[in-house]
Amino acid sequence: MPRQEVSISDIARAAGVSHSTVSRALRDSSLISPQVRAQIQQLAREMGYTPNAIARSLQTQRTKTIGVVVTSIADPFYGDIVKGVEAVTRAAGFSVFLGVSHNDPFQEMQVIESFHQRRVDGLIIASSRITGSFHSRSDRLHIPTVLVNNQTEAQEAPLHWVAIDDKRGAMLAVEHLVQLGHRSIGYLGLGNRPRSNRLRLEGYRQALVQAGITPRPEWIRVVAHDQESEPDDAGLGRQALPELLDSDITALFCYNDMVAIGVLLACRDLGIAVPQQLSLVGFDDVITASYVSPALTTVHQPKLQLGQLAAQTMLDILQNRPVENHLLFPSLIVRSSTASL
Amino acid sequence: MPRQEVSISDIARAAGVSHSTVSRALRDSSLISPQVRAQIQQLAREMGYTPNAIARSLQTQRTKTIGVVVTSIADPFYGDIVKGVEAVTRAAGFSVFLGVSHNDPFQEMQVIESFHQRRVDGLIIASSRITGSFHSRSDRLHIPTVLVNNQTEAQEAPLHWVAIDDKRGAMLAVEHLVQLGHRSIGYLGLGNRPRSNRLRLEGYRQALVQAGITPRPEWIRVVAHDQESEPDDAGLGRQALPELLDSDITALFCYNDMVAIGVLLACRDLGIAVPQQLSLVGFDDVITASYVSPALTTVHQPKLQLGQLAAQTMLDILQNRPVENHLLFPSLIVRSSTASL
Repeated sequence: MPRQEVSISDIARAAGVSHSTVSRALRDSSLISPQVRAQIQQLAREMGYTPNAIARSLQTQRTKTIGVVVTSIADPFYGDIVKGVEAVTRAAGFSVFLGVSHNDPFQEMQVIESFHQRRVDGLIIASSRITGSFHSRSDRLHIPTVLVNNQTEAQEAPLHWVAIDDKRGAMLAVEHLVQLGHRSIGYLGLGNRPRSNRLRLEGYRQALVQAGITPRPEWIRVVAHDQESEPDDAGLGRQALPELLDSDITALFCYNDMVAIGVLLACRDLGIAVPQQLSLVGFDDVITASYVSPALTTVHQPKLQLGQLAAQTMLDILQNRPVENHLLFPSLIVRSSTASL
Repeated sequence: MPRQEVSISDIARAAGVSHSTVSRALRDSSLISPQVRAQIQQLAREMGYTPNAIARSLQTQRTKTIGVVVTSIADPFYGDIVKGVEAVTRAAGFSVFLGVSHNDPFQEMQVIESFHQRRVDGLIIASSRITGSFHSRSDRLHIPTVLVNNQTEAQEAPLHWVAIDDKRGAMLAVEHLVQLGHRSIGYLGLGNRPRSNRLRLEGYRQALVQAGITPRPEWIRVVAHDQESEPDDAGLGRQALPELLDSDITALFCYNDMVAIGVLLACRDLGIAVPQQLSLVGFDDVITASYVSPALTTVHQPKLQLGQLAAQTMLDILQNRPVENHLLFPSLIVRSSTASL
């Protein structure tokens, strides 16, 4: 299937003028009279001419595109983040393209490389897993980059970021359970979200200690995805619950809503009543959290705002304005999966 | 933040050879000895050189990228489709970029235009809404295009496609309800998925008529999204249920799982027991359908396979192989939201 693009030469031939006259008219050059410019632009539209952004970007060094890397497009969490990014970048005349990393540092780097080869003006990376040796490569790319909820522990890279306060979110969840009278409270974490998992675990411990409770090792499980299998947070939650039930927990704080939903399914299988026998708190406030029964009590992340701020930060970088990083505060949404002991 | 890209000139200077020698070496030209080629390529790697895909594509007319347009990345339906597309295209050395249309024909056309300006080699469009006047513009683009579950009624465009057999899927759902003894069966459709909604409604009617049942008008509602508000299929289902309950239906076939989940939430609010008082069938078999309680009986779409076939069709087009369109058959997944009358 050959491309039959309308070229500037085609328009020049049809108009009976030179190639450079058409080129100038299409670039709105003042060397061409307004009337001739309008006529040539009209003709170009009628002939279906599309400016070649690739050729144009070689001249301007700007492509007016932002590459956004998400770990999954099956997770509703990223839907809102991308919506926020799009709202801000589109208003500024940028196109947004997405690439999927599947929460795998190698695939993430591949997506970044191909965005780089396409010369995007900037990169917004959600839940980045790039670490160590990747960073030195990433540094060389020299593409303005904003991280959303970075999962990398290494801080050497001079990148910009927006993030949720994971530790504070975890404290909100555990304080809520303590107020309901729970004393034996578990944590079910995910090892492949290293940074936020560590911070949520810290918040969990600190809230317990502040309540005079010493967390016991058997209350805590951090599970990891099998490298070979497709990540599925709900499946992990479902598998992990039985072992936690061997401890004396009456409440469980889960790394995120999808893990909590997996736990809910395991409870359904095992005949455990939620919240009567086990109170459950998630994190993220994805839409699915309100669909399950009982609806999940959870820590709300302002996802749309995270996306908007990431995009605004990117525009600030590209326009050489002062740039600030943003740490956002979560809030607690109390629904039906938690109850007094 | 200036770009400090390593250029061919930089490498030439460092190697003490000419620009054209480096250029040829990097293109594996046989005009350069294998040994010199290897040395220059090694040096380029060490210096962090990234070939400029934009400049290269101006020479080759190929960018090795596929643009995929989805209507939403918050809908788990598209996650699996994209996964299928990626599996096939990556193996063939293509990068995949995503754009989001938000089920709006204007935004869809904008995404297509920006993919076109970036000179993608091909477009895969899920649930396309492009109609009428857009088509003439789309035709002019001359980009190989494969549609997945096209929502356009117009058939004039010579596009390639893969799709699910919507009518057969609807018949499976309704025949299941008839076998359970239901005679008054409703349909709750979505007006902004015009083509598959029409086909599912046809399948619903035909299955009823074949069972000797004449569908009554008050059993059928087709709702549409407010143009201003963000589409939310579950919200529509939730709003639409009460009016349908004024009829005598004992079972309801919903356009898709998200609509059915909205109906389930409305039933929870209204104290209607599912499936004891109302049997419910969805369509798609998104993962969320198995998370809700009761788990949804639904029509399974082979989403991964739809994506794989769309990508394979695209590769066939690009490599001038014979191209076939594919109509896939759905299957019924019986879970807990349907029961005998």
